[in-house]
Amino acid sequence: MTSHHSIHPLDEALALASETTGQYTGRTTPGYWNMVGPFGGITAATLLQAVMQHPARLGEPLSLTVNYAGALGEGPFTLQATPVRTNRSTQHWTLSILQAGADGAPVVTTTATVVTAVRRETWGATDTPMPAVPAPAQCKPVRLAFRSEWLRRYEMRPVTGELPTQWDDSGHTSMTQLWMRDAPARPLDFCALAAMADIFFPRVWLRRARQVPAGTVSITVYFHAGGDLLAQTGTGYLLGQARAQEFRNGFFDQTALLWNEAGIVLATSHQIVYYKE
Amino acid sequence: MTSHHSIHPLDEALALASETTGQYTGRTTPGYWNMVGPFGGITAATLLQAVMQHPARLGEPLSLTVNYAGALGEGPFTLQATPVRTNRSTQHWTLSILQAGADGAPVVTTTATVVTAVRRETWGATDTPMPAVPAPAQCKPVRLAFRSEWLRRYEMRPVTGELPTQWDDSGHTSMTQLWMRDAPARPLDFCALAAMADIFFPRVWLRRARQVPAGTVSITVYFHAGGDLLAQTGTGYLLGQARAQEFRNGFFDQTALLWNEAGIVLATSHQIVYYKE
Repeated sequence: MTSHHSIHPLDEALALASETTGQYTGRTTPGYWNMVGPFGGITAATLLQAVMQHPARLGEPLSLTVNYAGALGEGPFTLQATPVRTNRSTQHWTLSILQAGADGAPVVTTTATVVTAVRRETWGATDTPMPAVPAPAQCKPVRLAFRSEWLRRYEMRPVTGELPTQWDDSGHTSMTQLWMRDAPARPLDFCALAAMADIFFPRVWLRRARQVPAGTVSITVYFHAGGDLLAQTGTGYLLGQARAQEFRNGFFDQTALLWNEAGIVLATSHQIVYYKE
Repeated sequence: MTSHHSIHPLDEALALASETTGQYTGRTTPGYWNMVGPFGGITAATLLQAVMQHPARLGEPLSLTVNYAGALGEGPFTLQATPVRTNRSTQHWTLSILQAGADGAPVVTTTATVVTAVRRETWGATDTPMPAVPAPAQCKPVRLAFRSEWLRRYEMRPVTGELPTQWDDSGHTSMTQLWMRDAPARPLDFCALAAMADIFFPRVWLRRARQVPAGTVSITVYFHAGGDLLAQTGTGYLLGQARAQEFRNGFFDQTALLWNEAGIVLATSHQIVYYKE
């Protein structure tokens, strides 16, 4: 069988089957593989995908928190998404991913909560205008500085705060700004946006110019855009900005903003990240 | 019966009974009453208290996310705290609060996730030094601008970004800085810190100089301090700083930092807040 349209790697990774409402099965894909498991952003996107496909969903994503409880291994997994409370204009979800452990019994690898909401026309304002940066075409695509397959799924054009070229403990700011989009290009949706909120390499690598082991423990994404605005953003670039606030006792936080090329904030995001040494 | 030591209102609010591991009963207290339910910070603190009291707890709080799914009414509630995954140095928790609904059947009012972790000595750095502000004694205690009992449970000494005196749509920055501590003074612990992360009045009131209905939908707190540092902070003041990043379609986000008087970041926090009009 041949197909005129090959499936986008993101859609392949987000493919979920469901026979019982709220229960899904999926599997990791090589396209988003990181060093010892899938890219955290793809796991976040997959959890959100379950909510998007749930027949009882009210409104659109407002908030997503994902806790990476344990390594997700290569292969199939099950995902549970439950709307625990539905109000007039908001809906609260709890989610988990389970995978067969060493003894075959299912273990929790990931937990999450999602809030979906009906957006309304209201007064609005931004307190974080997009910084003045060169256009995407003026920024060179990133060199692939470490070997993780998922990096090839994104076009990244750094503006500032690139991965250090020398791991010499020289110390830097923890701020990165980069233009990004799916590779190949794909119209933006909530799942793609959730994944991109986790695209930034660990701030500790930049801050210390030292590549210590690090991994996200928990990430939260707040969506400030509705589906219409995401559709309007289409295959355009997003400007992402991330910085750390505090590094201490093996954990640091990261605060991030994502604008579209028109300068509109689509999402704000935060994470707490483990690091060694 | 007389007592030489009256119980602190915070400890009264945090009192939980448990006969079955992980299942708790508590009740709202008048001391932290807000307009139509308890102060959101006290609900966050109560959830964390359940984790602190759980016999299977590993380490100390690292991350807390609370989703306010529905109004918590005056009276008793039940709280469930489950450690769903315990690793070598981190532990992942899911929590919920239930209360009898109109028909007597229990309904979910609040969901939460917590990560606890064992802190280790590592390299550290701050990228958010405490701003230069006058000492607490030089800042006047806040006037009680709206009538909520919980406001009396905190000593608040604003530095900048006070509640507007005129609701005249004049527009302001969304940034508030204030010194704060429990009233009466109480040695700082994780629960008290979690509550104080939610102390800031809705940013939309400041940004618009307009007091529209508003309420937190979801809050996340990252703890950067261990119990030793909190004990060392004792009854000293914390400097809190909060600002919004984006207001759109009925929701805005708030990003906050809390330092102790020695200038050490104890917590960073984020929330997404509903607002009307």
